[in-house]
Amino acid sequence: MTEPKGEWQLIDLIRARSRFDPAAVPIGPGDDMALVDLGESGCLVTTDTLLEGTHFRLATATPRQVGYKAMAVSLSDAAAMAAEPVCAVAWVGLPEGRDMAFAEQLCLGLSDAAARFACPVVGGDVTSWPHPLAIGTSLVARPAGVEPVRRSGARPGDLLLVTGDLGGSVLGRHLEFVPRVKEARLLARAVTLHAMIDLSDGLSTDLGHIARESGAAAEIDAGTIPISSDARRLAETDGRSPLDHALNDGEDFELLLALAPEDGRRLVREKPLGDLRLTRIGRITEGSGVTIVGSGGKRQPLEAGGYEHFRSDGGDSS
Amino acid sequence: MTEPKGEWQLIDLIRARSRFDPAAVPIGPGDDMALVDLGESGCLVTTDTLLEGTHFRLATATPRQVGYKAMAVSLSDAAAMAAEPVCAVAWVGLPEGRDMAFAEQLCLGLSDAAARFACPVVGGDVTSWPHPLAIGTSLVARPAGVEPVRRSGARPGDLLLVTGDLGGSVLGRHLEFVPRVKEARLLARAVTLHAMIDLSDGLSTDLGHIARESGAAAEIDAGTIPISSDARRLAETDGRSPLDHALNDGEDFELLLALAPEDGRRLVREKPLGDLRLTRIGRITEGSGVTIVGSGGKRQPLEAGGYEHFRSDGGDSS
Repeated sequence: MTEPKGEWQLIDLIRARSRFDPAAVPIGPGDDMALVDLGESGCLVTTDTLLEGTHFRLATATPRQVGYKAMAVSLSDAAAMAAEPVCAVAWVGLPEGRDMAFAEQLCLGLSDAAARFACPVVGGDVTSWPHPLAIGTSLVARPAGVEPVRRSGARPGDLLLVTGDLGGSVLGRHLEFVPRVKEARLLARAVTLHAMIDLSDGLSTDLGHIARESGAAAEIDAGTIPISSDARRLAETDGRSPLDHALNDGEDFELLLALAPEDGRRLVREKPLGDLRLTRIGRITEGSGVTIVGSGGKRQPLEAGGYEHFRSDGGDSS
Repeated sequence: MTEPKGEWQLIDLIRARSRFDPAAVPIGPGDDMALVDLGESGCLVTTDTLLEGTHFRLATATPRQVGYKAMAVSLSDAAAMAAEPVCAVAWVGLPEGRDMAFAEQLCLGLSDAAARFACPVVGGDVTSWPHPLAIGTSLVARPAGVEPVRRSGARPGDLLLVTGDLGGSVLGRHLEFVPRVKEARLLARAVTLHAMIDLSDGLSTDLGHIARESGAAAEIDAGTIPISSDARRLAETDGRSPLDHALNDGEDFELLLALAPEDGRRLVREKPLGDLRLTRIGRITEGSGVTIVGSGGKRQPLEAGGYEHFRSDGGDSS
């Protein structure tokens, strides 16, 4: 790559802030590629991009939060596979006029997430340009102790469980969420997970991914969806129902899992995640598509991101 | 990530165009992460970004060329380590108003490079935004058969060799260059390479990286630098010397290597790369910094990207 002004300073910053275990990262930042040890396992790879104006606004997010979020969205993908994060690389398209202090704050945010999940940033690419901020990460993970949990393994009869509370993350949670890396691995060790996904696009969309990839249908019970206090606060001002927010807002980065009924019931009973709520919200069935069952037993299709559909319904339960 | 319109179509396109060997890529695109088999070796990672207006202009590059270049710059990093590319992930910030056909051409370009180097694109992230095109790839490679060749292993007394011809890539070569993946591995198997880098930023800058990382100095002989016909063509119109272009233009994506004198002489004599020129251009010495030795024996510091320095010198040799 053509090297911009400032790239070397940033790499120096990353180097200074990071202590790489030479056994785990034999070659760190500063060479053409970083080398990481993976033992004998394969390697999982993902990439995510955050674009200013679409995934964050610098009026309401600090650059450190943006850096954190850039790593956290990829860490959430590792969680969704029940995988162990190994390392990440990051890239930045830096708006001209932003100074080194701004870039350092981005790096600090990346480092916050990297340190919290023992997932070092081992390389990067920074270029200035006269346009808004674009930042992304690619993350390498490995299956360690448990098989990667795919989207495609859900079977008719499975229960659907979700972690945490949903909706309204735009009020701030989307910048500071904790990727469910540890929780996912804990669940995958406790029971056999048939399918899992992280809720990045919203329950209505992401459940559709599981159903489609698994060649099955899914139905959820409107009255059981765990609705966040943020979703209720938003609903007070915008005329959408709290349920609508919980189903469609996206960027919750909670986990949605499908598993055998006895395993699902056991998890709900035993609360292996402690304070983090684990809620049974529905089931996998034969067929295709996603259905939502209202409080009166009324069934209707749940479209991906289909909050307009629900708005016309005058709000469902809760 | 919040999912944009069109992402699923692009993933379908990638899936349709790619036949993944299930032993090598047990989990391909469409899940939260892709899984690739690496055998028992570690894993090399790099990332690169191309920004419209900085790394390409859509007035002079087709989207297919841009897609190709996005993969090729990361493949060139793998070449610089003498590593074997395994897989890549790609992300795109797509300007609003660009249609599916445009996005497909980008994917085709990625696929062109992926197919040529057996390096499948196993994941991706595409988001529309009302700004210029940003595209990047992250690439996973593995050391297969030869140890990764670092920037930091050059030793005083080493010869410096470079592949191909340098300068003027902006006339078109920067969009269609062939990453020296095979050549690098061939050289690394033939002799012990002490240090290697791909010439992305230009010889003056990239040689500086080798010198600095190796804790040594480097000197090159102006009269030996292999100057491309593109560099000569450019020089006819812009008043800079052909040598200036060869030293500073960047994006040649040729290989610069440091190795023991006997090995260097052997490579130059035996021409293991066939038609691809392999030129001895200088040596590693004690000290620090990079020096260029003119045709009359005049020595002067070579600054990174320092073509203005050379311009004021009225052009050196050739």
